[in-house]
Amino acid sequence: MVGKHAEDPPWDVGELVQALRTARSSQEAWRMDEAEQRQRPSRDAIVRVVADLRAVLFPSHFGISEFSEESIDFFVGNTLDRTLRQLEEQVRRALRYVPPQAISAPGDPRALVGLFAQRLPAIRMALEHDIRAAYEGDPAAQSRSEVIFCYPGITAIIHHRIAHELYRLGVPLVPRVISEIAHGATGIDIHPGAQIGERFFIDHGTGVVIGETSVIGNRVRVYQGVTLGARNFPRDGEGVLVKGAPRHPVIEDDVVIYAGATILGRITIGRGSTIGGNVWLTRSLPPDSHIAQAQLRGDPEP
Amino acid sequence: MVGKHAEDPPWDVGELVQALRTARSSQEAWRMDEAEQRQRPSRDAIVRVVADLRAVLFPSHFGISEFSEESIDFFVGNTLDRTLRQLEEQVRRALRYVPPQAISAPGDPRALVGLFAQRLPAIRMALEHDIRAAYEGDPAAQSRSEVIFCYPGITAIIHHRIAHELYRLGVPLVPRVISEIAHGATGIDIHPGAQIGERFFIDHGTGVVIGETSVIGNRVRVYQGVTLGARNFPRDGEGVLVKGAPRHPVIEDDVVIYAGATILGRITIGRGSTIGGNVWLTRSLPPDSHIAQAQLRGDPEP
Amino acid sequence: MVGKHAEDPPWDVGELVQALRTARSSQEAWRMDEAEQRQRPSRDAIVRVVADLRAVLFPSHFGISEFSEESIDFFVGNTLDRTLRQLEEQVRRALRYVPPQAISAPGDPRALVGLFAQRLPAIRMALEHDIRAAYEGDPAAQSRSEVIFCYPGITAIIHHRIAHELYRLGVPLVPRVISEIAHGATGIDIHPGAQIGERFFIDHGTGVVIGETSVIGNRVRVYQGVTLGARNFPRDGEGVLVKGAPRHPVIEDDVVIYAGATILGRITIGRGSTIGGNVWLTRSLPPDSHIAQAQLRGDPEP
Amino acid sequence: MVGKHAEDPPWDVGELVQALRTARSSQEAWRMDEAEQRQRPSRDAIVRVVADLRAVLFPSHFGISEFSEESIDFFVGNTLDRTLRQLEEQVRRALRYVPPQAISAPGDPRALVGLFAQRLPAIRMALEHDIRAAYEGDPAAQSRSEVIFCYPGITAIIHHRIAHELYRLGVPLVPRVISEIAHGATGIDIHPGAQIGERFFIDHGTGVVIGETSVIGNRVRVYQGVTLGARNFPRDGEGVLVKGAPRHPVIEDDVVIYAGATILGRITIGRGSTIGGNVWLTRSLPPDSHIAQAQLRGDPEP
Amino acid sequence: MVGKHAEDPPWDVGELVQALRTARSSQEAWRMDEAEQRQRPSRDAIVRVVADLRAVLFPSHFGISEFSEESIDFFVGNTLDRTLRQLEEQVRRALRYVPPQAISAPGDPRALVGLFAQRLPAIRMALEHDIRAAYEGDPAAQSRSEVIFCYPGITAIIHHRIAHELYRLGVPLVPRVISEIAHGATGIDIHPGAQIGERFFIDHGTGVVIGETSVIGNRVRVYQGVTLGARNFPRDGEGVLVKGAPRHPVIEDDVVIYAGATILGRITIGRGSTIGGNVWLTRSLPPDSHIAQAQLRGDPEP
Amino acid sequence: MVGKHAEDPPWDVGELVQALRTARSSQEAWRMDEAEQRQRPSRDAIVRVVADLRAVLFPSHFGISEFSEESIDFFVGNTLDRTLRQLEEQVRRALRYVPPQAISAPGDPRALVGLFAQRLPAIRMALEHDIRAAYEGDPAAQSRSEVIFCYPGITAIIHHRIAHELYRLGVPLVPRVISEIAHGATGIDIHPGAQIGERFFIDHGTGVVIGETSVIGNRVRVYQGVTLGARNFPRDGEGVLVKGAPRHPVIEDDVVIYAGATILGRITIGRGSTIGGNVWLTRSLPPDSHIAQAQLRGDPEP
Repeated sequence: MVGKHAEDPPWDVGELVQALRTARSSQEAWRMDEAEQRQRPSRDAIVRVVADLRAVLFPSHFGISEFSEESIDFFVGNTLDRTLRQLEEQVRRALRYVPPQAISAPGDPRALVGLFAQRLPAIRMALEHDIRAAYEGDPAAQSRSEVIFCYPGITAIIHHRIAHELYRLGVPLVPRVISEIAHGATGIDIHPGAQIGERFFIDHGTGVVIGETSVIGNRVRVYQGVTLGARNFPRDGEGVLVKGAPRHPVIEDDVVIYAGATILGRITIGRGSTIGGNVWLTRSLPPDSHIAQAQLRGDPEP
Repeated sequence: MVGKHAEDPPWDVGELVQALRTARSSQEAWRMDEAEQRQRPSRDAIVRVVADLRAVLFPSHFGISEFSEESIDFFVGNTLDRTLRQLEEQVRRALRYVPPQAISAPGDPRALVGLFAQRLPAIRMALEHDIRAAYEGDPAAQSRSEVIFCYPGITAIIHHRIAHELYRLGVPLVPRVISEIAHGATGIDIHPGAQIGERFFIDHGTGVVIGETSVIGNRVRVYQGVTLGARNFPRDGEGVLVKGAPRHPVIEDDVVIYAGATILGRITIGRGSTIGGNVWLTRSLPPDSHIAQAQLRGDPEP
Repeated sequence: MVGKHAEDPPWDVGELVQALRTARSSQEAWRMDEAEQRQRPSRDAIVRVVADLRAVLFPSHFGISEFSEESIDFFVGNTLDRTLRQLEEQVRRALRYVPPQAISAPGDPRALVGLFAQRLPAIRMALEHDIRAAYEGDPAAQSRSEVIFCYPGITAIIHHRIAHELYRLGVPLVPRVISEIAHGATGIDIHPGAQIGERFFIDHGTGVVIGETSVIGNRVRVYQGVTLGARNFPRDGEGVLVKGAPRHPVIEDDVVIYAGATILGRITIGRGSTIGGNVWLTRSLPPDSHIAQAQLRGDPEP
Repeated sequence: MVGKHAEDPPWDVGELVQALRTARSSQEAWRMDEAEQRQRPSRDAIVRVVADLRAVLFPSHFGISEFSEESIDFFVGNTLDRTLRQLEEQVRRALRYVPPQAISAPGDPRALVGLFAQRLPAIRMALEHDIRAAYEGDPAAQSRSEVIFCYPGITAIIHHRIAHELYRLGVPLVPRVISEIAHGATGIDIHPGAQIGERFFIDHGTGVVIGETSVIGNRVRVYQGVTLGARNFPRDGEGVLVKGAPRHPVIEDDVVIYAGATILGRITIGRGSTIGGNVWLTRSLPPDSHIAQAQLRGDPEP
Repeated sequence: MVGKHAEDPPWDVGELVQALRTARSSQEAWRMDEAEQRQRPSRDAIVRVVADLRAVLFPSHFGISEFSEESIDFFVGNTLDRTLRQLEEQVRRALRYVPPQAISAPGDPRALVGLFAQRLPAIRMALEHDIRAAYEGDPAAQSRSEVIFCYPGITAIIHHRIAHELYRLGVPLVPRVISEIAHGATGIDIHPGAQIGERFFIDHGTGVVIGETSVIGNRVRVYQGVTLGARNFPRDGEGVLVKGAPRHPVIEDDVVIYAGATILGRITIGRGSTIGGNVWLTRSLPPDSHIAQAQLRGDPEP
Repeated sequence: MVGKHAEDPPWDVGELVQALRTARSSQEAWRMDEAEQRQRPSRDAIVRVVADLRAVLFPSHFGISEFSEESIDFFVGNTLDRTLRQLEEQVRRALRYVPPQAISAPGDPRALVGLFAQRLPAIRMALEHDIRAAYEGDPAAQSRSEVIFCYPGITAIIHHRIAHELYRLGVPLVPRVISEIAHGATGIDIHPGAQIGERFFIDHGTGVVIGETSVIGNRVRVYQGVTLGARNFPRDGEGVLVKGAPRHPVIEDDVVIYAGATILGRITIGRGSTIGGNVWLTRSLPPDSHIAQAQLRGDPEP
């Protein structure tokens, strides 16, 4: 350490840097496939891309608050132009970064982003249905704009529909970062792999978990704290988890799942069923089932 | 599309802009009342207003960290002056924006903000009681400042007491944006319509939901994951939801509700009652009731 | 009020400032120990310190996304140098700020930060184990970087391992601000006092609460909505809460706790036990216990 | 002054505020026409408007550095849409602000900005000629982009051609703020009233001053330190300056004025003339005149 | 150098760091008095202090553009409170930093800033006179606000009157940084030591230089490119420059100095004199002198 | 134009965009070589690179104001690592951008930046000499830090020595942007091609112009307003300017040039000469020459 001075702090940054380098290189074996990259995707960059995409989809709510019809097109075009370039760079990095064995390598980043971009109008249309479902399903909703601005379920589904398209195209990492941005903002954790039908509505939403291989039909309604989870994880002959196997529930059309219900495993909840609050469910139900938790009264607790 | 160049990306932003415009205009019928506005409230602007109001209420915690007595008054005056003007603009936009049938039009934005401002000292006093309730109710709390800085329940109630005043004045949209800002930051979802008494304390708080027409007395304590929800939604003759009807619980003074309890419908929990963790409750309770969940031991699950 | 003008708003900022000053001074008695300070810790400053520390621990994920080996050392050294100075200032303020009776005064801020800094390499090594536990424990995890970027459980444990070291050194307030930053971002609320062993994995995590005096062994796995809480709070002869007494569970090695389970009081869950989802538990369990909630089917609800 | 504390600084901000208020109100008489306004133009807002307009005129140099043909149109449209709205607001404020006697009131701000906007394509075309004049007139210029990026004379003329259009429309204050922004950045001080022909080139430029009523022909070249100033100022019967009277030189086509020359008064420099460096000139010259300073050799000085 | 990788750039940052350290330590002898400090004044911090002070002096021009009378006092108080604390810190650093032999040590930083603060109202009053002098002296000035917003001479004199008070109090370095901020923005270079009387007006201003020991009376008018400089520099017996000796001109009341004039040495320009443009002057003039440059006509040059 | 609304402004952004596109394509012929690029150098990026390089060279003045010896090395390494990568990108763009005929293509950007980086320590050493020359040459200078913080001549020479190295390596455009950044900040315009010896000192500096092919020896001192310019520009047979030919003065060692002197053409000023203020000089001078302007007294002027 050079030139110690009376006013200098007692810590030795040089030594700390060395000790941290040593600490980083511990257990290097298990992650050696990542060690060779010199560029990594940037979470901050993906945060900006997603904010831009949301503004592209809802320009007068998340983009510009004063506008004419024409303004909106210019805003959308300008924002889209910038953000697709940035997304391309992040996809490029993600493709180089992910362990080659983990993913069947898709096309080049530019082509992937082009395919993704073509899906944006369909995403926009699906989201309008989701918004309408929220507006019509919640007696507290006063206006369409309130739903767009204030409903965490809408925030979550906007992010999910974006992330899911990237997931479908085989883009690694980026869709998961997007879904986790939404999770952090809303407390709603939807894996980008989940397939979700039309007019999906999550109310309140904190604590909702929807697993990677979940399949959800049309007009499904879900409340806070609902889990669509895995019951157990298949392992291969060497005891290593088999990644990606179907292990989450199938929820058919017009199902309602009340707050705190936990539905686990590759089971099917038949169309039109209602699952009561806090129910714990690990087997399939036929259509139009109605499940509720028992209720007990007792002594002061706890 | 003009001037294609070898280096240009494969997507055609012009076509995407057009396709997105078409997508936006799908289902236009159901939201035609909003389409005519050229200015919308801005979520970002409301975020700044609320941060300023919080700093006005707790200037030495959220405003300036070095100060004299005098500094604080200048800070409060300067911040208040700026933020009330900005709030006025957002209220003005919200009033023009909301479907006229949805709300009995109140006075002009300037007068409304004036009325709101007069309530700030009372809000401040109520919050000091909430802080004290948290400090005295949690053995882990080391200091009043820890409570103000670190308790999500305090963050939530600061936002709620601000939002509720605006709600009472009939300001549309803005209070909901404020409550959702708090929800995003804390996982506590309190509708601005909820009436909450003195010395209210939410501990931990993630997953708490308090519905629009809830009425909560004094000295009530609530833990994470508690829901005060609606049991079913009244619909009018045409099957459309009746908005705004009383449908959430009444919680009387001195009630404690433990983590994960779900209380649904326009029922009354009598004063001094205790609701155990994870209880599911859909009927009224007399004063001093004590409700707890049953408990079972069984085989490995899941 | 000076110089009223036709365009001026109707509120009188001067009067509001006075009324707010009066409101602030209400109930002054109970917080008089804080009133004398002219400098307070700054939440924003602590937010920056923690972001820097996370970047120091994972420089290529949260610091610089383009780099060589050498770049990383320079980045780490430069960031560490700056952030330790800033942490020192916040610790200094926190030490002056906290009620003297509340804490056994530790050494000077500079020495405390020096001791904290020495712990960073060990924190880094522990975190690599946590990451590996997440990667190996979740079939949806595609890569180590996905775990670091996207798993809220990892975000929470990074913050906790930092906060816990400061807590152990007796630094007031700052560790709680850090844990609450993580709580806001992830919905996972771990008190900095909690002792947590190696290879700890929280999946999804929203709604998890881990209390101040919890003790958690190695290889423990926890899902969303799990509470490790206190059952009741010891009070002294005058009915005042006794702060800091052991009142949260002890979880031994290799325990798995499924979503929504609530475990309350100073009980011990024996090594290798499994606690089913939504279970409510207030007494100790021997090793290798397996607890699950009962399940009921019934009428439509609610 | 309230609550003095041992750590407080010795100054009394409250007293200073009062003393500054008193100081501000001294000499109130001479500026009473301004005192009644509650909104003022904002220099910062005008700075942003001008930066946006420059980017609109040269989108690939001052707007976006990666683009396709299409990108540019979207960028231009989006930026123009935003900046014309902001310009309108500043024009509105300027029109209310300026002493009514000082200016013959023009139309409403919206109409004025509309007229201004229509002039932008012509401004763009004129600027291309200016750039070409610089490129062809300076042997050091390597490329057109170097001229646009690096020539202060181009920066100055971009600002001038914008400011002059606003000046011609009778907009008060705003054009002067724009010209002073350019002056601060380049050291070239062109009053927005100056009439300047095609292919105008200022090299280096620091210290150039071009007065309000100057008239400059086509293909004029000017070097650093040149002044086109007034010789004396006409006063009315009461000794007050007559504002706006022609008092600066007329420079005809194809004149070159070398560094440091000073040309004063309403004189005419005939077409094709050359004015040597540092010349001091106060009378008209016929076409094709060539003026140079005498030169002396002497003793060491200073 | 560690871990070279095929993608790494060819430069070796580690070696560069070492070579730069060596380069920095060359010639260490002549600056050893500075080497021991661990904190330096920050130019950026002083930039912010000066911008704040300007806003304090002209709150509705450089502070807030929408306001009531009351707003202004709160803005001024809040800004002043913050900025005087920051100024104190910079003064403290400057006092420790400057070579002890170079300056007769003044009081402590806090007291110095207190004395400076007391001068602000008088500075404000002097500036109003300067503004009026500019408005009345320039036929192009349309309004008082145009003068404040747009006249570089006003920008320069605002900075000078602030810097000069700090200079008079013996504060090292800080006043020079302030004067150089103005120089960079306006091209007007006034040493903070210069004594300048009432109603001082600099028009256009680029290239004006006013030296440290200049003395300027009341109602003096100066144009662009004027130098009040030193003719030669007294040296001591060892040939070292004597710092601080009077060596710049004395300009008495009511003098006008036209563009480009150069006045050198400790000479006196008598009251009421007029110095023509580009004049070079090195001897004193009696009152009411009128000096002008000769003028020559000749052949084409250059 | 789509969907006109009563509140929309009268301008039609779509039409303006088209008209601006047409305006941009006028005179396309003369700049067709640039039209094909899809990426341009970014002035803002170069501004950041230069600010970083200045901080790398003077870390405790322009980088970090609180530090230990060690801090500085980490700061320098971290900043250098980042900024050289960014410089490489700008160099890459500049190389593609410039008309191929205009420049003899040098090596690849990465190699060029590597060569540039190696020169940084030598630049640092040269600058220390420049600083010392300023300190010793100006009686007003109180400390070395004052010179570094406050002397525009030092700002200019820092930028020049950086820009000149890039110029020497054949990098197009970037060095000119750097020199113009310095010109804008200081009023000193030094072309990056100028060759400048050791211990160069410019005092005050506004208006100084030093042309591309100037050659300046050691220990030269220059004051404000000095021009080292070209007398006439050689043209080729078709009347097109010959770019790059020697056309500016050679200034030998130990020359002093006082304020406002203009020296034009490829002449030589012999070593030890003194050029008086405002002198106009177009022929060579032998060593130890002393030139001064004549001085005249006359009637009131202007």
